[in-house]
Amino acid sequence: LLSPEENEKLTRVEGNAPMGQLLRRYWQPFALSRDLDGPDSNPFRVRLLGENLVAFRDSNGKVGLIDKHCPHRKADLFYGRNEESGLRCVYHGWKFDVDGNCTDSPTEPKASNFKEKIHIKTYPVEEKAGILWAYMGPADLQPELPDFEWMHVPETHRYVSWSTQDCNYAQAIEGGIDTVHSVYLHSIMDSHRKLDEWKNNEAWGGRGMQTRYRTKDNPPMLFAQNTDFGVIVGGRYAGDQGEDYWRYNLFLLPYYSMPPGDPGRKLCHAFIPLDDVTTARWSVSWTLDKPFTSREIANMRLGSGVHCELIPGTHRPLRNGTNDYLIDREEQRTLTFTGIKGTGEQDFAVQEGMGPICDRSDEHLGVSDIGIIQMRRRLLADAENLEKGVEPYAATHGDVYRVHAGETMLPSGIEDWVDAQNTQQALAARW
Amino acid sequence: LLSPEENEKLTRVEGNAPMGQLLRRYWQPFALSRDLDGPDSNPFRVRLLGENLVAFRDSNGKVGLIDKHCPHRKADLFYGRNEESGLRCVYHGWKFDVDGNCTDSPTEPKASNFKEKIHIKTYPVEEKAGILWAYMGPADLQPELPDFEWMHVPETHRYVSWSTQDCNYAQAIEGGIDTVHSVYLHSIMDSHRKLDEWKNNEAWGGRGMQTRYRTKDNPPMLFAQNTDFGVIVGGRYAGDQGEDYWRYNLFLLPYYSMPPGDPGRKLCHAFIPLDDVTTARWSVSWTLDKPFTSREIANMRLGSGVHCELIPGTHRPLRNGTNDYLIDREEQRTLTFTGIKGTGEQDFAVQEGMGPICDRSDEHLGVSDIGIIQMRRRLLADAENLEKGVEPYAATHGDVYRVHAGETMLPSGIEDWVDAQNTQQALAARW
Amino acid sequence: LLSPEENEKLTRVEGNAPMGQLLRRYWQPFALSRDLDGPDSNPFRVRLLGENLVAFRDSNGKVGLIDKHCPHRKADLFYGRNEESGLRCVYHGWKFDVDGNCTDSPTEPKASNFKEKIHIKTYPVEEKAGILWAYMGPADLQPELPDFEWMHVPETHRYVSWSTQDCNYAQAIEGGIDTVHSVYLHSIMDSHRKLDEWKNNEAWGGRGMQTRYRTKDNPPMLFAQNTDFGVIVGGRYAGDQGEDYWRYNLFLLPYYSMPPGDPGRKLCHAFIPLDDVTTARWSVSWTLDKPFTSREIANMRLGSGVHCELIPGTHRPLRNGTNDYLIDREEQRTLTFTGIKGTGEQDFAVQEGMGPICDRSDEHLGVSDIGIIQMRRRLLADAENLEKGVEPYAATHGDVYRVHAGETMLPSGIEDWVDAQNTQQALAARW
Repeated sequence: LLSPEENEKLTRVEGNAPMGQLLRRYWQPFALSRDLDGPDSNPFRVRLLGENLVAFRDSNGKVGLIDKHCPHRKADLFYGRNEESGLRCVYHGWKFDVDGNCTDSPTEPKASNFKEKIHIKTYPVEEKAGILWAYMGPADLQPELPDFEWMHVPETHRYVSWSTQDCNYAQAIEGGIDTVHSVYLHSIMDSHRKLDEWKNNEAWGGRGMQTRYRTKDNPPMLFAQNTDFGVIVGGRYAGDQGEDYWRYNLFLLPYYSMPPGDPGRKLCHAFIPLDDVTTARWSVSWTLDKPFTSREIANMRLGSGVHCELIPGTHRPLRNGTNDYLIDREEQRTLTFTGIKGTGEQDFAVQEGMGPICDRSDEHLGVSDIGIIQMRRRLLADAENLEKGVEPYAATHGDVYRVHAGETMLPSGIEDWVDAQNTQQALAARW
Repeated sequence: LLSPEENEKLTRVEGNAPMGQLLRRYWQPFALSRDLDGPDSNPFRVRLLGENLVAFRDSNGKVGLIDKHCPHRKADLFYGRNEESGLRCVYHGWKFDVDGNCTDSPTEPKASNFKEKIHIKTYPVEEKAGILWAYMGPADLQPELPDFEWMHVPETHRYVSWSTQDCNYAQAIEGGIDTVHSVYLHSIMDSHRKLDEWKNNEAWGGRGMQTRYRTKDNPPMLFAQNTDFGVIVGGRYAGDQGEDYWRYNLFLLPYYSMPPGDPGRKLCHAFIPLDDVTTARWSVSWTLDKPFTSREIANMRLGSGVHCELIPGTHRPLRNGTNDYLIDREEQRTLTFTGIKGTGEQDFAVQEGMGPICDRSDEHLGVSDIGIIQMRRRLLADAENLEKGVEPYAATHGDVYRVHAGETMLPSGIEDWVDAQNTQQALAARW
Repeated sequence: LLSPEENEKLTRVEGNAPMGQLLRRYWQPFALSRDLDGPDSNPFRVRLLGENLVAFRDSNGKVGLIDKHCPHRKADLFYGRNEESGLRCVYHGWKFDVDGNCTDSPTEPKASNFKEKIHIKTYPVEEKAGILWAYMGPADLQPELPDFEWMHVPETHRYVSWSTQDCNYAQAIEGGIDTVHSVYLHSIMDSHRKLDEWKNNEAWGGRGMQTRYRTKDNPPMLFAQNTDFGVIVGGRYAGDQGEDYWRYNLFLLPYYSMPPGDPGRKLCHAFIPLDDVTTARWSVSWTLDKPFTSREIANMRLGSGVHCELIPGTHRPLRNGTNDYLIDREEQRTLTFTGIKGTGEQDFAVQEGMGPICDRSDEHLGVSDIGIIQMRRRLLADAENLEKGVEPYAATHGDVYRVHAGETMLPSGIEDWVDAQNTQQALAARW
């Protein structure tokens, strides 16, 4: 439960909003490398933290991220012509390079050197792990990129997708770190039937200890603790012989989550505010041991699991709020819990259903929401600290991101579950 | 002509608006029984007086009308799973019965009895005459349903439909009690030709005295008088030998109308505000003497008369403002007065054409608008009385609705036309 | 660069805005004669300076332009029935003639003469050169029509079209008088290749001196000077042997432009504000010497040159902002500068791309924008003068419009280029 003032502070990111200022201390994923086929790619529309921008890849393959409007007479540079080493406005032929310099202003007399006085707003861009990142904060504070495990695996071991979501980023994060919803939102119809099948199914049994303990003791006891990268949410399930089974769900500042999944296949989300009421949901799937098969990639492109099926040529989900996520009520009665196809789309239905910005003044949180409460507190505290001049630690320490979600066994009754060796081992990134 | 302040008071129904408070003293039709095929129906979106709600029929066939948002974390319950005796939120599996009790909150520890503390907003529902009614007023003032004649006829003698209308409810009521517009809006092209046909046409002649007198003396003199159920609008036409022909059009509080129609077939409208700028127009057709034939029902479903043709799966008219009501200008020149098909759609064209909320500060009312003036005064007076603590009489006296529209002959020069025995006889409900 | 206050004054035209008041001193084109097929045409929706109106052609072929709403109860007269000498509201049959008189109010008692008291808002209409013009200013100041050259050519020598544009009128005018943008926005891909072709191409060479000098010296030096009809923008290109080549682009008050084009074919635009964020772009093509061929007319209807391809039955361009003007990136790389088909649509892409109302507080104008600066100053000055009571001269002097755009040679170093005999000869209308 948040007061209206706290809710505003948590959710607003446009203009000078404190949370927007906090987010600008971090790098923002804004496009896939393949969104800008290059060199001399088509210009690509970008919206980030309420700003309208245009990205393009120049003749050398370098990516520029510039203001949508030409500084001359404000024409839309999305319609610009991506030429030899620069994007040229089609109105009067002014041309800009990826650094924001005006390299040609042919309507002005050559002698006047007019172009030297003209610059277009531009943001630094990095390209890593098939993702284009922008830094929109103060130039003198530009940090290094976060150092994620999935940046170190071969391209064949990683699949990245993103889609837009019609709601505020905070309710998207809340879904990302919500350990207990999967058993409902993403489950098949009859969890009792599923439990029996699991018990007698080697394939599932082979997927590790989670099935065994999660089906035995549900809901788990939840714990949440601050750490350098954000918040660790631990779920404790009764185990065997003096031990408990723990699952860790990570919230990484400012908007990442790593849900514990299938041990052989890892997952990282980012929920990046395009503006106050629109979010880009990014999903990175990766493996440590073997490449994705063509079938696995084809399935992810089709929209299986967390990767949504998109309207071709866009990053908008085909199943969205305007068509009730193509809900199939008969399927809801007989097969899946929602009748909506796709894990991501199921998330969208509940997250967007809260409204563009969820009113948190009359929600009813239970003990299962402890991770969400902790995440909100952490973001609000970091934003307030920055207002007092305290810079966020994680933004400038990429090494804190060398973690992944995981699971482990711990002795029953343990107090310091975070620092336990088993926990640290389970969370440590490997490459 | 209303001042801007009066117009606001007449038209605004959302939030704490006085007129909305008045309407909440009455029961509101919100869905057809068949809109919630049951038991365990699909959830059904309801909007009423500016509130977003979800209706569902439980395993026992009982209907619940609850808040759209789950009280836990505000997910949209329209996507909920209608299970054994309750609607379950698909996000975390919380479940609610038709009385608003939380009967399961499986993400919380069983020992905590958390669910006992959780309730969802719910409104009392009654089901009568194939209609689902909601009461949204103070619990201690919950009245009985209005006792309409059409509630007492067999199901085979009644046909009910409803469709949304893109304008404020008050301009819809004004159309419903506007005695004189039918001769224009709903007429065929050449009323003189029609008159001649009528005179020589036994079929029409057989439909009673209205044709004879209405075609002889038009426009009629109009009179309006308050009564316990609302307002009686009387239209007086010159008759024969010391008698006049009177037709009665009824406005019943808070938003019903009964136009005098074909003597063998009766009609009642309700114009229920879904919000300030959207109205549900309900139409009940019924007969006292014989069932509707299959052909008559098929025609009404097709959109003949006051029952609109709907976009399948919705309550939205196929012919609506976005497509100019499919007006056929050639038909307007040669066959019908509007070129628009359907009595209801003709009403929508003129009522929605006034704008979302009609500006009544520069209208020009004539003597033919006396019924409309009286209806507005009555609603405004009742709303102001309620603000002073005077409860509306009709809301708690269902028996005042035992009337129907009608026609009669009265001696010329009569003063007290309402209390005349012929009038009372013509208006008295029968069952 | 304009301050926010100046920008508001330049761009706002609705209600009592000073610029709207200035525009109301002039006649406004609002429809083609052929938009109202008559007599007894279909009613036609008109939006002008923020007002909603309905136009119709009566039985005598005379055009009325009246309020959208019937004065009785505000029904939409677009659905009205255009009958013998008047438009009849379909709600209650009230009828209005083209002068705004109520000629029938059949729902009122005949004896009351009620209709004599009823008038509907109406604006004077003139029909000239295939165009319907409205005057929306003070009745006692109603002026004569502007006396354009294209009003005096035979119908066979003129082609007029109009389409709506989703932005403020001022950025549309700016495009209309922007001499230098054509070489970029409207050009084919490789201007160097084009130059070589021109030099060796008799067909192009035959089109007069413009090709010779414009390709030799680009950009030109621009000059702008006030005159009785508005502003003359002169572009000076280096010529031969002590002479310069001059091209004149005209801005005519309050929103016309005449770009110098092909000497054999002339062009006049009007950019008429329908409201603050929507503009009607009118284009008149005409010839002085010979009729347009059928092929030329067919091409203009198809959308060649400045005449846009429209969505059938509307004045909305088929290629518009909702579909990215159907931009073809491959064509942009290899054939045309924009990849967008149609001169008009290319203009729309850059003008609408500035946003609904361009923010001029951070533009960067160069010497090539001198004409635009002068046009803004002129409009702002005329609006401010009118606020002080000084009526605009051009509004009441139709003869100042007897000009056309053109080109000429002038001695090098001439100061008074406007009054030079060659200039005056080049600009003088002929008929």
